[in-house]
Amino acid sequence: MTETERFRELGQQLRVDSVRASSAAGSGHPTSSMSAADLMAVLLEGGYLRWDVDQLTNPANDHLIFSKGHASPLYYSILKAAGIIDDAELSTFRQLGSRLEGHPTPRIPPTDVATGSLGQGLPIAVGIALAGRRLDRIDYRVWCLCGDSEMAEGSMWEAIEHAAFNRLSNLTAIIDVNRLGQTRETMLGWDLDRYRARAEAFGWHAITIDGHDVEAIKSAYDEVLAVTDRPTMIMAKTMKGRGVKAVEDLPGKHGKPLDNPEEAIRELGGERDLRVQLRRPDPAEPHEFAVAGGELPSWDVDEAVATRLAYGEALTALGSIRGDVVALDGEVSNSTHSELFREAHEDRYFEMFIAEQQMVAAAIGLQVRGWVPFASTFAAFLSRAYDFVRMAAISQANLRLAGSHAGVSIGEDGPSQMALEDIASFRAIHGSTVLHPSDANQTAQLVAQLADRPGISFLRLLRGKTTVRTPADEKVIIGGSRTLRDGDSVAIVACGITVDQAVAAAETLADEGIDARVIDAYSIKPIDAETIRAAARDCGAVITVEDHWPEGGLGEAVLEALAETGDRPPVHKLAVRQMPGSGKPEELLRQAGIDAEGIAAAARNLAAG
Amino acid sequence: MTETERFRELGQQLRVDSVRASSAAGSGHPTSSMSAADLMAVLLEGGYLRWDVDQLTNPANDHLIFSKGHASPLYYSILKAAGIIDDAELSTFRQLGSRLEGHPTPRIPPTDVATGSLGQGLPIAVGIALAGRRLDRIDYRVWCLCGDSEMAEGSMWEAIEHAAFNRLSNLTAIIDVNRLGQTRETMLGWDLDRYRARAEAFGWHAITIDGHDVEAIKSAYDEVLAVTDRPTMIMAKTMKGRGVKAVEDLPGKHGKPLDNPEEAIRELGGERDLRVQLRRPDPAEPHEFAVAGGELPSWDVDEAVATRLAYGEALTALGSIRGDVVALDGEVSNSTHSELFREAHEDRYFEMFIAEQQMVAAAIGLQVRGWVPFASTFAAFLSRAYDFVRMAAISQANLRLAGSHAGVSIGEDGPSQMALEDIASFRAIHGSTVLHPSDANQTAQLVAQLADRPGISFLRLLRGKTTVRTPADEKVIIGGSRTLRDGDSVAIVACGITVDQAVAAAETLADEGIDARVIDAYSIKPIDAETIRAAARDCGAVITVEDHWPEGGLGEAVLEALAETGDRPPVHKLAVRQMPGSGKPEELLRQAGIDAEGIAAAARNLAAG
Repeated sequence: MTETERFRELGQQLRVDSVRASSAAGSGHPTSSMSAADLMAVLLEGGYLRWDVDQLTNPANDHLIFSKGHASPLYYSILKAAGIIDDAELSTFRQLGSRLEGHPTPRIPPTDVATGSLGQGLPIAVGIALAGRRLDRIDYRVWCLCGDSEMAEGSMWEAIEHAAFNRLSNLTAIIDVNRLGQTRETMLGWDLDRYRARAEAFGWHAITIDGHDVEAIKSAYDEVLAVTDRPTMIMAKTMKGRGVKAVEDLPGKHGKPLDNPEEAIRELGGERDLRVQLRRPDPAEPHEFAVAGGELPSWDVDEAVATRLAYGEALTALGSIRGDVVALDGEVSNSTHSELFREAHEDRYFEMFIAEQQMVAAAIGLQVRGWVPFASTFAAFLSRAYDFVRMAAISQANLRLAGSHAGVSIGEDGPSQMALEDIASFRAIHGSTVLHPSDANQTAQLVAQLADRPGISFLRLLRGKTTVRTPADEKVIIGGSRTLRDGDSVAIVACGITVDQAVAAAETLADEGIDARVIDAYSIKPIDAETIRAAARDCGAVITVEDHWPEGGLGEAVLEALAETGDRPPVHKLAVRQMPGSGKPEELLRQAGIDAEGIAAAARNLAAG
Repeated sequence: MTETERFRELGQQLRVDSVRASSAAGSGHPTSSMSAADLMAVLLEGGYLRWDVDQLTNPANDHLIFSKGHASPLYYSILKAAGIIDDAELSTFRQLGSRLEGHPTPRIPPTDVATGSLGQGLPIAVGIALAGRRLDRIDYRVWCLCGDSEMAEGSMWEAIEHAAFNRLSNLTAIIDVNRLGQTRETMLGWDLDRYRARAEAFGWHAITIDGHDVEAIKSAYDEVLAVTDRPTMIMAKTMKGRGVKAVEDLPGKHGKPLDNPEEAIRELGGERDLRVQLRRPDPAEPHEFAVAGGELPSWDVDEAVATRLAYGEALTALGSIRGDVVALDGEVSNSTHSELFREAHEDRYFEMFIAEQQMVAAAIGLQVRGWVPFASTFAAFLSRAYDFVRMAAISQANLRLAGSHAGVSIGEDGPSQMALEDIASFRAIHGSTVLHPSDANQTAQLVAQLADRPGISFLRLLRGKTTVRTPADEKVIIGGSRTLRDGDSVAIVACGITVDQAVAAAETLADEGIDARVIDAYSIKPIDAETIRAAARDCGAVITVEDHWPEGGLGEAVLEALAETGDRPPVHKLAVRQMPGSGKPEELLRQAGIDAEGIAAAARNLAAG
């Protein structure tokens, strides 16, 4: 066969296998796979995608991200053609226990991340490309197959801007412009010129081709290799369901197996069993950063320090101790104090500007390559990236997200800047860790531990200063708590800004003969259930107090810890219940009833009742 | 004074008042206000902004959205210049109880929405412009002041694309390109040509000007009025802190009052007390849609119907009953069944493509004008717009968000498409309503009630069919529940897909002599606390069962209802605890332990224990 014939034959095989896999499953997206089959065939057979199939974790391997994750039949057909899976496994597509899920996940190597929520693959690809360029310093390429429908997601344009700004010539986006979305034509249809104008206006090298002309595809990839100062976007005009008349370029054929797969396979020239010898990358080892060593910062008890400052200082120190720690920020580094890390370790700092989705996606991309990212912004604005965080859990990503300016205690800026739902939303991420230290020493120790913590970790930080109560030499562990005061009338469980308030309330109550136990539950997930249960056993009532809405926060974590306990005292939740406005921090804490006075009043009521 | 002088003088007054307000507050963003002062002065004094200041709710009024909400000192200075507030109120900026919060909210009319999370104002402005064009059919204009930093937010590009696609010539975006973000220069700096290229590539009419040249500004606005087939973006080169040497175009001056406000005011020519007579709009009344009337759909008990289908049918019927109901969808209308509404009421249907942030923002914009939006997509993908939902609560918006394909019960598509954190995240929205009907008749009644429900409502819908158990003539109310079976051994609290499973479990248990009470808690927030408490009183144990992660969902809502009750039985939560893969719905329910068998086993354990 000529090269052109090999490309065409492999493309047909990928189509046939996509049809077969989805027919065996009884569901899936064969037509979305068929449109991109030729693009992928040339990528593989032309030697553009460099994978060491015997060592899928080879750091020099290229990365292939299916941003249009629903084209999973095509993706798995590629893995089969490359000899990574066999035909028997291909037929397990979408079955219980199969590694070949409805949308790709890292359960099947070498898949880097889960896709399937559109608009996420390209931003993550930007992160991997950033790792290649700035951290690993290996010339692997990142190839990202995108759908045209997902170009409507704003996150794609965050990625497009960042890729251009960072001149990521190691990144190639291949847009499968098959014109048809799930229910109708996209906004741009087949208007490749408008796609091209947008890509160019954002600073990309742009190529438009017929995505079924294998020679044009090859030329495009050759052109990619020659561009060294910017990313390249290939806009390929394709047809959904290409090659099978019953579905080709027809609406209403999205996300369903073909009605007559046998006929379709015949029309595509029948089954094939071509194996591609993928080109191997040149050997390469990731760059390692020299480190100076040193120790974590610590503070004296009774100092007043903002935990966000402790975060910045601890992260900076951690960066001197470990070369794999990197930081990202959403253009508020002088608020989160990640600027300290930038100043000390500029080569490991990533400015993500006001693009929180891209920030989280970049962090996901960096950890794909084994780096240890800490990404920070106001906790309220992490909500912008919630879908990315949700997907990151499916990606089995290890991420540390630091959110500053939590709660009404930020004061004058008002509710748009106050995170009040962050504990709830992060607790509901699978396998997550949610920490809310009340002082600087806790913060420093937790930052260091988070570097080795698997899964998604959220560190909630305060704008204002709090009293250092944890001695620098006391060990603070994830899943622990600190009992600040013993007592058995009432247990007050606090975290973050409310710890100082709880201690003050307990002092007032002590004068009145009410013995309050005060627990600093800095680890909200996992929570120190044993300590909570002991408090419920010993005390006549439990009060939880948090600078957060009542739902899903500390209070519910405490209730959860006590759920199976039949015999336990009443639990009274203090939380923010009315929409706050602007005001001084202490005014807003008071208004919400979560200051010392509010806590003491609640304790008195419970003691009286 | 000549017109030019009047423009300049008003610009200086807006600057002076911005400096004064933030100095009085001791915080705020005067420099970000000063850059845009001339742009706003001409908008007001030139008669471009049409506001009936005596009737701020006049439907013909223009809309002014400060997408860069941190420029609130400028916004409030405008309200003062327009005679809407007085100077005494201006000096209450950022104080407890003031209507003039750190970032604008609807507490101060005529503010349509809260801003302050960047990248939200323009997408909402698109929604208001859509309302003007397609619903109200009034020629009001929407003027949206944007920061250049927020152009990095993907949501801005969703808005830019939708505005062009819908040819919203009634929308003008004014980009205050002051070059400086919070910590550094933006990615594009003052490169107006690149901004222009992007705007034009997206289909906007683009104008670049010197944003301190009042005559150029006036020409730009005149040009806006002449463009009738597309939105216009004015890119204005400005200087942050313009007019005061100590801060003008200098880094490090973001978000803080001026060090020497008296000197700054002198440099700006001193205080002024100019009043602008804003141009009034021509009188106009919103269009009303003729409706055919009819009734909500209903189904016979024991039919098997997917609640998403019931949603589509009920919404369509509601659209025939009420002319103010409108629908939006994120290009999955054949999955959510909002396509039924589109087919019946095409003029009130908005296709938002794969742009969930823009979808929610458009819904917020439509409700600003009193329309009653229902926006639908997969519940998992509503997480994409979580920051918009959070802000919508601050905007006092009345929104109905319908999320289909909840939980592992969707089956083969896998976890990327499964909403498993949606109950938690929506419960944690201030003032929200969270409903998860288990059958079609419940769904239909709840859809109708949601039309009049204030705040943010989330309706969680199922992909698969469930048994209709609620008689069509039984009243279903928000805050209620249905007890499907009485019993006092154990109470099983279920919702959505798990109701059928709970009933089956109870039948099995009855054969074993265990009397299970089964409660269908279709209203998760507010939850029917009275019924839950009665069950806890009567039964030896409570089991909650939900197709959701354990955190923040039904189980915690039940725990919350029982929090203050000291004497209550153990509560055992059944929920999804491991990351699911693909599989058949029943296989995945079983694997998660939330099918009939898992529920029965849990009940047996509790009965034995």
